[in-house]
Amino acid sequence: QFVSVQAATFLILCDPRASCSIPASLIVTPCFSDADGGSYDVVNDASSPAARECCAQQSSARHNWEMNYQEAAIYLQEGENNDKFFTHPKNAKALAAYLFAHNHLFYLMELSTALLLLLLSLCEAPAVPMLRLGIFVHATLELFALIVVVFELSMKMRWLGFQTFIRHKRTMVKTCVLFVQFIEAIVVLVRQTSHVRITRALRCIFLVDCRYCGAVRRNLRQIFQSLPPFIDILLLLLFFMVIFAILGFYLFSPNHSDPYFNTLENSLVNLFVLLTTSNFPDVMMPSYARNPWSCVFFIVYLSIELYFIMNLLLAVVFDTFNDIEKRKFKSLLLHKRTAIQHAYRLLVTKQRPSGISFKHFEGLLRFYKPRMCARERYLTFKALNQSNTPLVSLKDFYNFYEVVGLKWKAKRNREHWFDDLPRTAFLIFKGINILVKSRVFQYTMYTVVAVNGIWILVETFMLQGGNFFSRNVPWSYIVFLTIYGVELLLKTTGLGPVEYLSSGWNLFDFSVTLFAFLGLMALAFNMEPFYFIVVLRPLQLLRLFKLKKRYRNVLDTMFELFPRMASLGLTLLIFYYCFAIVGMEFFAGVVYPNCCNTSTVADSYRWVNHTVGNKTVVEEGYYYLNNFDNILNSFVTLFELTVVNDWYIIMEGVTSQTTHWSRLYFMIFYIVTMVVMTIIVAFILDAFVFRMNYTRKNQDSEEDNGIVLEKEISKEEVIGIIELYKRTSAATETAQLQKIVLQMDKYGQMSTVFLGRRSRTKSDLSMKMYEEEIQEWYEEHSRKEESQTPLQEPASASSSSLKPLSLRQRSQTVI
Amino acid sequence: QFVSVQAATFLILCDPRASCSIPASLIVTPCFSDADGGSYDVVNDASSPAARECCAQQSSARHNWEMNYQEAAIYLQEGENNDKFFTHPKNAKALAAYLFAHNHLFYLMELSTALLLLLLSLCEAPAVPMLRLGIFVHATLELFALIVVVFELSMKMRWLGFQTFIRHKRTMVKTCVLFVQFIEAIVVLVRQTSHVRITRALRCIFLVDCRYCGAVRRNLRQIFQSLPPFIDILLLLLFFMVIFAILGFYLFSPNHSDPYFNTLENSLVNLFVLLTTSNFPDVMMPSYARNPWSCVFFIVYLSIELYFIMNLLLAVVFDTFNDIEKRKFKSLLLHKRTAIQHAYRLLVTKQRPSGISFKHFEGLLRFYKPRMCARERYLTFKALNQSNTPLVSLKDFYNFYEVVGLKWKAKRNREHWFDDLPRTAFLIFKGINILVKSRVFQYTMYTVVAVNGIWILVETFMLQGGNFFSRNVPWSYIVFLTIYGVELLLKTTGLGPVEYLSSGWNLFDFSVTLFAFLGLMALAFNMEPFYFIVVLRPLQLLRLFKLKKRYRNVLDTMFELFPRMASLGLTLLIFYYCFAIVGMEFFAGVVYPNCCNTSTVADSYRWVNHTVGNKTVVEEGYYYLNNFDNILNSFVTLFELTVVNDWYIIMEGVTSQTTHWSRLYFMIFYIVTMVVMTIIVAFILDAFVFRMNYTRKNQDSEEDNGIVLEKEISKEEVIGIIELYKRTSAATETAQLQKIVLQMDKYGQMSTVFLGRRSRTKSDLSMKMYEEEIQEWYEEHSRKEESQTPLQEPASASSSSLKPLSLRQRSQTVI
Repeated sequence: QFVSVQAATFLILCDPRASCSIPASLIVTPCFSDADGGSYDVVNDASSPAARECCAQQSSARHNWEMNYQEAAIYLQEGENNDKFFTHPKNAKALAAYLFAHNHLFYLMELSTALLLLLLSLCEAPAVPMLRLGIFVHATLELFALIVVVFELSMKMRWLGFQTFIRHKRTMVKTCVLFVQFIEAIVVLVRQTSHVRITRALRCIFLVDCRYCGAVRRNLRQIFQSLPPFIDILLLLLFFMVIFAILGFYLFSPNHSDPYFNTLENSLVNLFVLLTTSNFPDVMMPSYARNPWSCVFFIVYLSIELYFIMNLLLAVVFDTFNDIEKRKFKSLLLHKRTAIQHAYRLLVTKQRPSGISFKHFEGLLRFYKPRMCARERYLTFKALNQSNTPLVSLKDFYNFYEVVGLKWKAKRNREHWFDDLPRTAFLIFKGINILVKSRVFQYTMYTVVAVNGIWILVETFMLQGGNFFSRNVPWSYIVFLTIYGVELLLKTTGLGPVEYLSSGWNLFDFSVTLFAFLGLMALAFNMEPFYFIVVLRPLQLLRLFKLKKRYRNVLDTMFELFPRMASLGLTLLIFYYCFAIVGMEFFAGVVYPNCCNTSTVADSYRWVNHTVGNKTVVEEGYYYLNNFDNILNSFVTLFELTVVNDWYIIMEGVTSQTTHWSRLYFMIFYIVTMVVMTIIVAFILDAFVFRMNYTRKNQDSEEDNGIVLEKEISKEEVIGIIELYKRTSAATETAQLQKIVLQMDKYGQMSTVFLGRRSRTKSDLSMKMYEEEIQEWYEEHSRKEESQTPLQEPASASSSSLKPLSLRQRSQTVI
Repeated sequence: QFVSVQAATFLILCDPRASCSIPASLIVTPCFSDADGGSYDVVNDASSPAARECCAQQSSARHNWEMNYQEAAIYLQEGENNDKFFTHPKNAKALAAYLFAHNHLFYLMELSTALLLLLLSLCEAPAVPMLRLGIFVHATLELFALIVVVFELSMKMRWLGFQTFIRHKRTMVKTCVLFVQFIEAIVVLVRQTSHVRITRALRCIFLVDCRYCGAVRRNLRQIFQSLPPFIDILLLLLFFMVIFAILGFYLFSPNHSDPYFNTLENSLVNLFVLLTTSNFPDVMMPSYARNPWSCVFFIVYLSIELYFIMNLLLAVVFDTFNDIEKRKFKSLLLHKRTAIQHAYRLLVTKQRPSGISFKHFEGLLRFYKPRMCARERYLTFKALNQSNTPLVSLKDFYNFYEVVGLKWKAKRNREHWFDDLPRTAFLIFKGINILVKSRVFQYTMYTVVAVNGIWILVETFMLQGGNFFSRNVPWSYIVFLTIYGVELLLKTTGLGPVEYLSSGWNLFDFSVTLFAFLGLMALAFNMEPFYFIVVLRPLQLLRLFKLKKRYRNVLDTMFELFPRMASLGLTLLIFYYCFAIVGMEFFAGVVYPNCCNTSTVADSYRWVNHTVGNKTVVEEGYYYLNNFDNILNSFVTLFELTVVNDWYIIMEGVTSQTTHWSRLYFMIFYIVTMVVMTIIVAFILDAFVFRMNYTRKNQDSEEDNGIVLEKEISKEEVIGIIELYKRTSAATETAQLQKIVLQMDKYGQMSTVFLGRRSRTKSDLSMKMYEEEIQEWYEEHSRKEESQTPLQEPASASSSSLKPLSLRQRSQTVI
């Protein structure tokens, strides 16, 4: 019901008014004439009068179809991006704004503004020395960036409408932050001096809200969803800590040589630190020296807190994580399904309610994937079409997202790239090909790599400091590099460059060898700054891990995980940023050499330059380097806090220079990173266990090469499509397709086989893992929908609920 | 086939010889006349001539049945303990030895010998000062213990036979260790001085081999099974370490103020330590001070090694663990099933091949659970019997293990314990009961506990060291204790003591209140050594966690896990023991105050007693306390190494006093504890996730009160059984059953309802979780068995394959 009503309002709102005021036709026309180049960005030309004129000449029926195509494409995009349908553009103005705000140029602007705002903290008040800017300069930059954000937000408001805009929580928060930032920036500019601006920590929200940071948003949502059980267990943890603190205070405070338990506060702080093991065994030593049995207290405490409850924490988070992942997958799947249903209803005609014809499908793809060429569009259509009718039914159309990502290529008739070469050359290359593919060659290479590894190890072991990079290049280096070079050459010629580079492992070999070669150059030409490349030589050894299946599995999973890992890392960085800003505002310039003489950790901050005999000895504690003096230093300090070891030295140093309350900052940071780290661990666990379960489930099936689909196209079919395109006067498409016909003629074939290929995603794996449950979900979902809109056959429903328009529209179906 | 052949050989072997030489009848007779007291230990009387005579008088047919009962009971025991059937006793001598070696007295002997051997290391050479014994004394003790072990082993050999004994791996290893220990003990005794006896570390095997340490054996097996994937990932870890060590050496050794990377060995060791984060950020500081960008090296290293590969390790172990748990459960289940089949075949008669009659079932239980009373035997029989026939079929008999553990109790007709009291008392108690069960009362108590908690916290915070235990007892203590006392009294009277104490939480309340009362006594009567009890007061606060469901869940799971956790802890202790012995042999007396002045960690071992002004200041590093001077110290040191923080200080201290190779000991220990700890984490994860999945699956079902079964017995049934027992002249049973009849008569009932109850085990949970798969396993199992013994209907098979005996046996079925 919702869909159709919406579609109806949409069309009603934009149709009765001057049909030229809607920019849809403007986008359509250029797209149509140049399917490969045109994209949504051409909207920018929307106001050119020529385009308006052209629009006026088109028949309104065609426009209506174009409108339908576009809206269906928008629905599919929303399904893919998991945008809620209530943000669907409701009228022509909204559509224009929607299109304006949904293209890569706009996304890039969003991203760069956000980055600019974040990077400003490099130059603001406690700035990195080299990047310091005057207050006037950076405040102006900030204002500029904020104005751009205002512009972005106003576009969003245009698209969403005021009502929806207000209800969209994230956008509202962004608006508030923007408002505060704006005022503060102006205040800074007026006063010409920076005040305590903790709100700068909120700048992250501009980055989080970027279209490209969807993964970060998902992570954050997942973290917040995992919080309730996490906090419950955390309370248990803290509760035991308090009990043990009281106990410890009673037991150990009579010992005056024990500085760790002399007050309840100290007792609490030290047990908190002990939770991170950072002050163990030191915290135990004074009481242990007095009475050996006091170790029982610490052993019991650590066993309960560290080995039990902390693992419990992981278990609870892992469990929640698992559950959330599944629910997320389910809702995403159902959302996509709904999107497909919406799109389908906009594409079926009244005459043929059982499916979508190629013409309409092609129209959809023109908007959904403007860069797709005519051949690919037809192949996608064919891949979707499971039945032999010329129409794609709703059931087939449900596979849209799986199929549309495929990259199509004509299946090679020749096996090797050198098949067309003259006989002698062919034989030579064939020989190389066989050699390269033989086990002997592979294992020889493994042996060479292993020998090289041992060589490097021994060579390095022989060096005892000093001048490593002698002027003459060591001969071993040249020998091994030659061998690798020859291998690379043989493989490239034997397999053909395309096939060679299509494997990730070969790409890795190639780049490592290239780096080694660059290193040799650096050595030979004595370019000191590039010496570090030489050092990368041992990476060659990684090739040895191809030998065992488990490693291949692990490394493959690692590469698969990489995007998610990166987004998790980015999420962590965002937390870092917030804490770095707060840290800088409060603790900048607090620690310096010999600063903390009153604290128990004074040694670590010492910097003494005294003379023994006639030699100057520098005694350095170095910890004054772990400060919050600028944002880069803060990041390093926060990383050290994340690693946890000896973090209390940093905490105590800062505390001794400020107040006791500073500890709160460090403790909260510890808990936050604990949450994020636990999530990361849970994520890695989940991903690997999932993957291994999957492998176990599909042990018998073929090796995992991603998704491959095969489709055959006959010459007649191609000619048929050419006819179709000719009628709509799409020159590029026609030319493109004609090329295929020529190719077929050349080889005397009546048909060509095309291969569609894409890599397997987590979603594909999940589809297979939850196979049985998915059917249940679908049924449940359709039952729920039915109860909302009783008796809604998709095709008939669309024609009935869209009646006021469909009558006009459907009267002119062409194909 | 295997079963029947074995059963046949067993009976053939023991029957043709003098039927009195088998001790079976000797066990049978006392058991029969006194079912509650007799147990297998009565075998000890086997040689008494009176018993022999008595045996001779019995008819041989009855003996055959008794033999069958006994063997069936042994099969069921083997099924329960997961003993392989090839260790099944094969003849009369073996049976005698089997019975001798399978009772609690023998098990206790085994355990105490093993413990004695382990505890000897408290008194041997680097002994705990207070427990030092002369060489002569402890060597003699050791020899004595070893002789006992020899005796145990010889009994085992008698039971297993030489062939099986040789093939039984664990026993063979034990024999070899025993041999070596024996020789060494004699050498020590002869030379009157202890040599380097690392082999003492192997003493653990005596403990591991104990019957009571089955859980430890399972853990060890699980650890070893998880090793292959673990080692694979460990190699990956070490590989990256080597690469980074080479890299670090090249990058940082030109910096002469950096002591961490000046040689390749140092570079390797420090990166190994960095893996444990123990020397971070110190290891980074010298290079960071020189060039801030060098932190990238450490961040990348830690990200790859610590945050990625270490978690990968956990993932791989967790996955393997999961898999092993499931396979273990499956094999155990099938093993039990086979055992039940074996037992069943021994119990059916030829006349009635479709099931077991009560008479035979009762005979089996007499051997399997001698302590069970007649009523319980009949109830068990009834609980098993799903059909209304007087026979238990094989299908019903498969539930044997689930049913036999139930504790039966007559269902109370009265709701409260005070129902029989006079009217006034009843009303009073009823009032208390309602009060105690009301929410208001509960929440009032929670409030009191919370107030008490805050009170304690504030009170403790107010104290600033010094004399906590003033002579006069604080009034708050008395007030709160009084409230708790009143609560306890009300609850006990309102619910009845039995019902009150049947809940774990009430038990906890009770003991904490008791402790608090003892603490009060200690304070009032000024008994200093018991002051620590006062300190346990905050434990009351734990009651607050009853409030939330998640905590109840977590704490329940915690209690369920406790046995497994304890066995894992014991496993860890066994590893500790091995390492402690090795450590003591090599490093005893190596570290002492001011010992390691040449090393980089000299500060931690300092003990300086210098005078500032007229005050003596002691500067202590305390680390010399972390030594291997006796086994207790070693254990504490090893615990500190397990916690990992600052472990390198201990390592470097010992290394500086011995050789570089000592590091190997510490590194291996780190890796071993890493394995065990990872397993522990995996175990906790697995247990909790499993439990939570289970809860999610059974969300709608009732609250978890363990397994409960209800059975009704009519008066006629009881009278029937009494008749049966009278015929076999079992006086105790008859009397017992008559009491039930009297009870029924008293209340004028025609039948009584009994409730069977036991707590839910992991196995029950697994049964429910794998419900569907279990059916598959069964089918697969029976298919496999069928292919081994074609067309084997259990009942008919037993009568056919046991033909030579069954003819004789089955001719005299009674019931």
